[in-house]
Amino acid sequence: MALEQSHLYQEIHEQSAVLEEMLTQEPDAVARLAGAIRQRQPEYVLIAARGTSDNAGRYAQYLLGSVNRLVVALATPSLFSIYKQPPRLGNALVIGISQSGKSPDIVSVLAEARQQGALTAAITNVPDSDLGQQSDHVITLHAGEEKSIAATKTYTSSLAAIAALSAELAGSKQMKQELAQIPAKVNAILALSPAIGQIAERYRYMRDCVVLGRGYNYATAFELALKLKELTYTIAESYSSADFLHGPLALIEHGFPAIVVAPTGLLLPEMQEFMRTLKKREAEIIALSDDAATLAMGRIAISLPAGVPEWLSPITSIVPGQLFAMHLAAVRDYDPDHPRGLRKVTETH
Amino acid sequence: MALEQSHLYQEIHEQSAVLEEMLTQEPDAVARLAGAIRQRQPEYVLIAARGTSDNAGRYAQYLLGSVNRLVVALATPSLFSIYKQPPRLGNALVIGISQSGKSPDIVSVLAEARQQGALTAAITNVPDSDLGQQSDHVITLHAGEEKSIAATKTYTSSLAAIAALSAELAGSKQMKQELAQIPAKVNAILALSPAIGQIAERYRYMRDCVVLGRGYNYATAFELALKLKELTYTIAESYSSADFLHGPLALIEHGFPAIVVAPTGLLLPEMQEFMRTLKKREAEIIALSDDAATLAMGRIAISLPAGVPEWLSPITSIVPGQLFAMHLAAVRDYDPDHPRGLRKVTETH
Repeated sequence: MALEQSHLYQEIHEQSAVLEEMLTQEPDAVARLAGAIRQRQPEYVLIAARGTSDNAGRYAQYLLGSVNRLVVALATPSLFSIYKQPPRLGNALVIGISQSGKSPDIVSVLAEARQQGALTAAITNVPDSDLGQQSDHVITLHAGEEKSIAATKTYTSSLAAIAALSAELAGSKQMKQELAQIPAKVNAILALSPAIGQIAERYRYMRDCVVLGRGYNYATAFELALKLKELTYTIAESYSSADFLHGPLALIEHGFPAIVVAPTGLLLPEMQEFMRTLKKREAEIIALSDDAATLAMGRIAISLPAGVPEWLSPITSIVPGQLFAMHLAAVRDYDPDHPRGLRKVTETH
Repeated sequence: MALEQSHLYQEIHEQSAVLEEMLTQEPDAVARLAGAIRQRQPEYVLIAARGTSDNAGRYAQYLLGSVNRLVVALATPSLFSIYKQPPRLGNALVIGISQSGKSPDIVSVLAEARQQGALTAAITNVPDSDLGQQSDHVITLHAGEEKSIAATKTYTSSLAAIAALSAELAGSKQMKQELAQIPAKVNAILALSPAIGQIAERYRYMRDCVVLGRGYNYATAFELALKLKELTYTIAESYSSADFLHGPLALIEHGFPAIVVAPTGLLLPEMQEFMRTLKKREAEIIALSDDAATLAMGRIAISLPAGVPEWLSPITSIVPGQLFAMHLAAVRDYDPDHPRGLRKVTETH
């Protein structure tokens, strides 16, 4: 089967349209949730999610933290589902993120939150799912059915849903305008696909790598590593560049592949300094950036589109990563739609 | 140099005495902090830490969550140190965990918390460090100088400090009695050292592995993986067993090494089910458990001491992992005290 016929290829290429649809359809739901947040003034946010959706949660940690000044905690579902000793949620906003809305452990967090009287919200592709039904507010991803096991379009749509909520809470017209331009930016990146296919050849026999990002793009590093694991069986470990210096740096030796996500923004000088450290250790750097000097530090450079503000950069910067993982799966003759051992809906307890 | 002369070996073997000292010296400091928590009734806890100390924070997430019903968020220091957009901490308890108390990003979180009027505490080996000085309360680790770059005795002492706080907050005499028995249990595990040295031979050429745990021992999985990375340069990735099923399971093929931390407790049936999944995929399982049936599921079995309650099991279950990483470094002729590229105090911004 040609790669272009795969669900994965098609779903990666649907992302611009999905984002457009979500941003058109959901402003009312987002505004209702923002209104409830303004009214309830939650002390903090608790997000329950697994896998790709958990990476969307990591984005929310930084975005809601810096723009909306909300502390975001990532839930420990087993306290709810297995230990049955849920913490007191007090005056929290509890958000469940799940494509299917089905994973019992995530649903259990929302059910407990509702019982404790917390404000609850779901971000899901299936609004009438168990998760949706346990939540006061639902933001729908409008991704259509996601058939590929590796999630792509539901990830970027989840990020955009969080971005829309942040912009609405901030009451910022500028943020909304910037967000409205993202679907076109995502579309533009897809033109990189053939070039990324060429680059993937070089990594046919890469057995392991690290993926590094920080701040907003900590989420991107995690999600890119997850795609590489799911689709190409590469042992790809993701780190914040700061955490990486606290120990794992010891892994780096001549030629060790390090994918660095470093778009323009406040963190760029940090990331460049970090890349110099990696170069001293003779890592093979794959640089993802929109900054020429940063790209020049990579053995391999993948250009991100210019003009994307840092707070939205995770929505665009994951796309070349998705393309890279897809092409690397193809280079290795793996089935992009059916990674070994995985099913679409994983129900963990 | 004989392995026994290394700082790492000595510090691993000092752990029982350090725990004893911390548990003897710190009850007053712990009681003062618990008193302040009772008075202030924080809505949630925010922990700022990096590397090994961050893994102690993961333990606090489960322990303070299930026993004391406190939601614990792990801080995103870059929001404080780089973006300079710290979230509103409201009525939070903010805890910094750092051996040296020096890392500027961690100190910046505590400084901001204090300025916002939050209740602050430090868990550190250096009470008059910057971190200690920014905190209303200090719990001291009493580990003596830690000379090995890979942290061991400060990790177990940090866990015990958190355990002491949890017991004090719960007002539970039984918990305190159970905790008082831990130094002896840790001492008993050290007798496994020669057997673990033998086991390490088998993994001379292991290039990568996964380390899996859940609930309380999610922290153990992270810390064991970190020791393997720092000391042996093994690409060791840690996961909650639940997260692992959401994608990374695809990595597992015949012979792929999976270290599973599965002591007796509420999660044991989950972990056994998970090990059956790993066995079906023909993983090589290294089982750490105190349960005979669980040990029997491993290709290699490492016995944990019996009679340690689940809530304290992370303090004992990391010790065989430390020994394994130490012996594997020796098997590979690496310097256990000076991993390549690392310094003892990592100052990240």
